Amino acid sequence: MSDVSPEQEAVEQTLVDTVVASFDACEDPRLKEVMVSLTRHLHAFIRDVRLTEEEWAAAIDFLTKAGHITDDVRQEFILLSDTLGASMQTININNEAYADATEATVFGPFFVEDSPAIELGGDMAFGAPGEPCWVSGTVTDTDGKPLVGARIEVWEADEDGLYDVQRDAGARAARAHLFTDEEGGYRFWGLTPTPYPIPDDGPVGKMLAAVGRSPLRASHLHFMVTHEGCRTLVTHIFPEGDPIGWKDTVFGVKESLIKKFERQAAGTPTPDGRAVDGTWSKVRFDIVLAPAGA
Amino acid sequence: MSDVSPEQEAVEQTLVDTVVASFDACEDPRLKEVMVSLTRHLHAFIRDVRLTEEEWAAAIDFLTKAGHITDDVRQEFILLSDTLGASMQTININNEAYADATEATVFGPFFVEDSPAIELGGDMAFGAPGEPCWVSGTVTDTDGKPLVGARIEVWEADEDGLYDVQRDAGARAARAHLFTDEEGGYRFWGLTPTPYPIPDDGPVGKMLAAVGRSPLRASHLHFMVTHEGCRTLVTHIFPEGDPIGWKDTVFGVKESLIKKFERQAAGTPTPDGRAVDGTWSKVRFDIVLAPAGA
Repeated sequence: MSDVSPEQEAVEQTLVDTVVASFDACEDPRLKEVMVSLTRHLHAFIRDVRLTEEEWAAAIDFLTKAGHITDDVRQEFILLSDTLGASMQTININNEAYADATEATVFGPFFVEDSPAIELGGDMAFGAPGEPCWVSGTVTDTDGKPLVGARIEVWEADEDGLYDVQRDAGARAARAHLFTDEEGGYRFWGLTPTPYPIPDDGPVGKMLAAVGRSPLRASHLHFMVTHEGCRTLVTHIFPEGDPIGWKDTVFGVKESLIKKFERQAAGTPTPDGRAVDGTWSKVRFDIVLAPAGA
Repeated sequence: MSDVSPEQEAVEQTLVDTVVASFDACEDPRLKEVMVSLTRHLHAFIRDVRLTEEEWAAAIDFLTKAGHITDDVRQEFILLSDTLGASMQTININNEAYADATEATVFGPFFVEDSPAIELGGDMAFGAPGEPCWVSGTVTDTDGKPLVGARIEVWEADEDGLYDVQRDAGARAARAHLFTDEEGGYRFWGLTPTPYPIPDDGPVGKMLAAVGRSPLRASHLHFMVTHEGCRTLVTHIFPEGDPIGWKDTVFGVKESLIKKFERQAAGTPTPDGRAVDGTWSKVRFDIVLAPAGA
């Protein structure tokens, strides 16, 4: 703002002060705090870049298009938040490191409430295409105590890079929930994760292309783990050696969440004796939940 | 951020740096500048208020609802920008004071491209309800030279607080365009402006209610004035003594744009001899355009 005159500076600052004062009557102190901070940062952005009227109009158009492409299964505003790192920053702020508790990462737009239940050792793929992957581990608290009956929700894209709901809003495949056993253990068949693009036929995809960014997400398998008395964990695991890895377009990768997915040659006996056509992989993921309120 | 540990601070700052670096390959330097600044200010906001995951979800829901209520005639994102003062700040930045040029204010969401043409002295109300108002003045440059054939677009809400397009997307009333005469003069019949609420049945209206703000705009009449070689002027005039005035919910009022609308008793002869039933008003608005590029 080096070439802004003192008179112009005063006009702009007076407006900021006036907008901030418009929230004086707000009776909810937290809402007031959020709106005042939003106002200050929004105006600071507009003033810092000396936003042009054409750019303002382009922003309105971007938001309008994002709104119109958004429906029950496509959430362009979450994609926008994800690709600007706003989702990951919110996760960081609300899931501070606690002892050796497993780290959180982004939720993403593809969770659904009504996943099918599977037994321990069951197959969450439900026919979705991809290489089978045996996933197992334990759920414990930060004292190492096994958490019995912890609910584990798992979901992932298939090898075509699509979630079930992207093929058909009512479909349920490559997603399930299961519960830990008496030793806090869990195991299931899923799919070896592969990289895929976030939906990029909308305004967020156009933005990524315009700035020279890839729409690809690092390969990952989603987990949400809940147990009474514990902080709910929303996270992924990422395969070691993934071609996208740290270039993940939503900034979700954390070192501690990179796991070795061991590929097995065709014919290698499986842990549960299941017959598998071709290669398969296995991964171990031991989950540690922080106490609620930590 | 006083109670954020250095370790947590480092996690959050590393993410900001990573997102900023994701724009390194952007070949458009202006786009890169805007995206980097947006990223920094967005993350600063999230970190300053320690945004909760519930608040993040509420923001996504707000934007989604704003997108879904927006169509060809309802523009919730412009209302959001207006009520946060972002529109007015953009206007301020792009229309710096120049000599005695008339000041600009917000464009608003109700301009349409295809207003009807009227002759000088014509009636732009086209039957819209309200008290008749005789509007006249001149258009000159900052040296006082009359600008001949300047195009003046005028539009306003009727006395029910509605623009034509809010009643019917195809309707054209209380809006018109006309051209200045050989002396730079103009005159037309419009309506005495009255206060009205911005459309408040959507998420922006809910936000205003939640923070204790009124949805009312100060009474105003919109102008857009264009002439070759001059900076296009988008502005309003506001009646002196308006009940809303400076409490305008979109922060559009400027001292220099407040004009005396003189109410005339029923039966007072009109400037052009037109017969008017009941009271009418008159206002003079002399417009000065800055040079293009000023």
